[in-house]
Amino acid sequence: MNNDSSSRIATRLRDWIAGAGPGAKLPSTRSLVAEYQASPVTVQKALQTLTGQGLIESRPGVGTFVRAVRTARPSDYSWQTAALRSPQAPLPPASATMRGASNDAIAFHSGYPDRELLPERLVRAALIRAARGDAALSRPPAAGLPELQSWFAQELRASTPVGITPPNPSDVIVLPGSQSGLSSIFSALAGSGQPLVMESPTYWGAILAAAQAGVRVVPLPSGPDGPDPEDLARAFEETGARLFYAQPNYANPTGAQWAAGRGEQILDVVRKYGAFLVEDDWAHDFGISTTPVPVAAQDDSGHVIYLRSLTKSVSSAIRIAGVIARGPARERILADRAAESMYVSGLLQAAALDVVTQPGWQTHLRSLRHQLQSRRDLLVTSVRGHIPQAHLEHVPKGGLNLWLRLPDGTDLERLTLDCERAGVMIAAGTDWFPAEPAGAFIRLNYSGPNPGAFPEGARIIGQCMEQNMS
Amino acid sequence: MNNDSSSRIATRLRDWIAGAGPGAKLPSTRSLVAEYQASPVTVQKALQTLTGQGLIESRPGVGTFVRAVRTARPSDYSWQTAALRSPQAPLPPASATMRGASNDAIAFHSGYPDRELLPERLVRAALIRAARGDAALSRPPAAGLPELQSWFAQELRASTPVGITPPNPSDVIVLPGSQSGLSSIFSALAGSGQPLVMESPTYWGAILAAAQAGVRVVPLPSGPDGPDPEDLARAFEETGARLFYAQPNYANPTGAQWAAGRGEQILDVVRKYGAFLVEDDWAHDFGISTTPVPVAAQDDSGHVIYLRSLTKSVSSAIRIAGVIARGPARERILADRAAESMYVSGLLQAAALDVVTQPGWQTHLRSLRHQLQSRRDLLVTSVRGHIPQAHLEHVPKGGLNLWLRLPDGTDLERLTLDCERAGVMIAAGTDWFPAEPAGAFIRLNYSGPNPGAFPEGARIIGQCMEQNMS
Repeated sequence: MNNDSSSRIATRLRDWIAGAGPGAKLPSTRSLVAEYQASPVTVQKALQTLTGQGLIESRPGVGTFVRAVRTARPSDYSWQTAALRSPQAPLPPASATMRGASNDAIAFHSGYPDRELLPERLVRAALIRAARGDAALSRPPAAGLPELQSWFAQELRASTPVGITPPNPSDVIVLPGSQSGLSSIFSALAGSGQPLVMESPTYWGAILAAAQAGVRVVPLPSGPDGPDPEDLARAFEETGARLFYAQPNYANPTGAQWAAGRGEQILDVVRKYGAFLVEDDWAHDFGISTTPVPVAAQDDSGHVIYLRSLTKSVSSAIRIAGVIARGPARERILADRAAESMYVSGLLQAAALDVVTQPGWQTHLRSLRHQLQSRRDLLVTSVRGHIPQAHLEHVPKGGLNLWLRLPDGTDLERLTLDCERAGVMIAAGTDWFPAEPAGAFIRLNYSGPNPGAFPEGARIIGQCMEQNMS
Repeated sequence: MNNDSSSRIATRLRDWIAGAGPGAKLPSTRSLVAEYQASPVTVQKALQTLTGQGLIESRPGVGTFVRAVRTARPSDYSWQTAALRSPQAPLPPASATMRGASNDAIAFHSGYPDRELLPERLVRAALIRAARGDAALSRPPAAGLPELQSWFAQELRASTPVGITPPNPSDVIVLPGSQSGLSSIFSALAGSGQPLVMESPTYWGAILAAAQAGVRVVPLPSGPDGPDPEDLARAFEETGARLFYAQPNYANPTGAQWAAGRGEQILDVVRKYGAFLVEDDWAHDFGISTTPVPVAAQDDSGHVIYLRSLTKSVSSAIRIAGVIARGPARERILADRAAESMYVSGLLQAAALDVVTQPGWQTHLRSLRHQLQSRRDLLVTSVRGHIPQAHLEHVPKGGLNLWLRLPDGTDLERLTLDCERAGVMIAAGTDWFPAEPAGAFIRLNYSGPNPGAFPEGARIIGQCMEQNMS
């Protein structure tokens, strides 16, 4: 092979290409061999050089062509603006909690527990068993694998007091994650233009699902003991809403757990107004100093739509949640799920069931509780020591987050940016308010990577706060 | 332990239970020991008997209680009727194609290929590798795993002619199945109350997704060569629709493949009206005597929203599809997907990518093509031999289905029922019409289990047809 010859051919072909323009077909290798009086290998080498430079491309069996130069023609999609019209239900941008973080950042912003808090061994073993079994190739019923339906029903049944009829497996619909459940519940039980009462602040994913469903959000203030039942009655009365979304245990973002008896009071109001309580029990596996008892356990009259997720406690790759609903409401939700996705991967269902029915799962949950406790306590100490400007309304008894109130006038946008530049990721509280924020809040998640850096992270936040106030 | 004593205690306790009623707390074991002058073991035995009979239940650390008798109080959910109101977008019931079938039935009704047509070895190996890798515990970006985005883009790029800018990986959104894509596309690009043109007949899942999105369906007749471009222009003109859903290759249910040049003609109309073509390339892997070329390959102006699914060709457990869209349309779809489910399981994405990038995948596709050909030919022969009343408009060049026209006046409901009783599952064509059916059709899927039974199945359908006509 002669390198000089191949460069010479490439140079001359480049001129030819410039003249011929995009799409032109190059002469065959045979003609080039004849034209340049070179060996086929040398010609091929020249063509490879040009291909590597992005100037030509070969289509096997068809020939070699001059490539369209991308930058020559920027695409114009402006016609779509007319076709798409304004969105019917404008969606808020994805929350800052979904941002990735560089490996050396101190990450307080994410909503997902770090890998070291997941039952890694159980997850991998369960997935491998599922991969070898029937679930790898089969299609489960629309409502879910019967054994997984039973497990979700059994979990709620375990909290159900005597005298209340516990749920049946057939009351359960398995979901590909609780976010999908929220969308379906809001669409199916309220629907576009209808009112939906939500605690405020509340989970940003629920606010997003409400926007997608096109429902009209009615915010209900909720404190460390939960919402005031009279406020809820007033909200139902004034708006005609029949749906109330709430997180009675370790609410995201505040960590609040409804006071004893509050669930029954809220249920009384819900019953009185012929309404539904959508109970998002997202943190069921994240109790620290208390054990969460679902409000749904008090209900056998179909007033509570109960949502339980495994995504955060099992693995974000095993996106499985379950909704428990009774009566026509369940049929509505199931019809919406079937239209949206027909069924949930049986492999993920089998793996989720495998994980939560292993003896190791209970061991894992006990160890998780201790780890969350140390992490929470460490972050509380760090915050108190290093962020004197922050007010921690209460130390949450479970969940994954601290909710800090900062002085009024704090520039949250600047604070999160300053912190990020200093290597600390935090989440501004704004995302968790369905309407205007009631103050300047930040949420710090204590389930992220590297808890050893919590004091340092808090120190940096404190410093940035100082700059922010000056 | 004295069995007679324990039975005696159980009998007397049963009387006590009947009097005390549900929820009553039983006396402590210690009191029962004293009362019945029996050993603790005998009392425990009596309690176990009653527990086994479902009369009592013990709550560790709290006590033993009389259980609520389930059958005594049927639940009344009728209050929900008022709370739920009429559905805003009534959803058709799930298609008959989703029914299960007993093992010995001859199943022509399902839409999913039998396990023997799936790349079982590749699927299991890919899932096991994914279970051992990073994907088992991590969360991918909302738009999908970058490597899988690249693969979907590359697949379409391979068909893209010179002079057309092929799609970029960033134009791809990975979906948990194509059904989810249809819902999002119809919601995001048309929206409630807006018109959507669809071929008729067309995929029932798309009709379902359209109902869920609340769009107004405008049916466009489509024959063996595809729809008439002038009809499409008229539909756009008359309704103001900006969205046209179609399956140019091996349409479900008819198996039609658009004639040569039809794609370009349709694209011209779509461009002229500033509209979108939603191309559902569901059967891309199911070519038999032709190789499907997506219409999307002709477009770099953002007019085609291209949907490609792997669920049916890889495994129903690996629910993965990709949508390729450019410009603001892609942003709208992505926002809807993020609100609906945030992200798609990275495990399923990694496994899907693994399967389709193995050398064995191409081998599998070649073998699949041959198997589909034999199955199709066997079913065509069987139908022609045994169902003289059926008219097969054309033998499909790919896909999984035969679409048979039966004489007008055929009672399809009775026919499917008679066939089912005789052990043959068929699908009445009704599900595939967005409006009134244009005639009496049935769809027979030739990718189901046990092709050896196709002639017998056809014979039975022929017999049931005879009864139906008499």
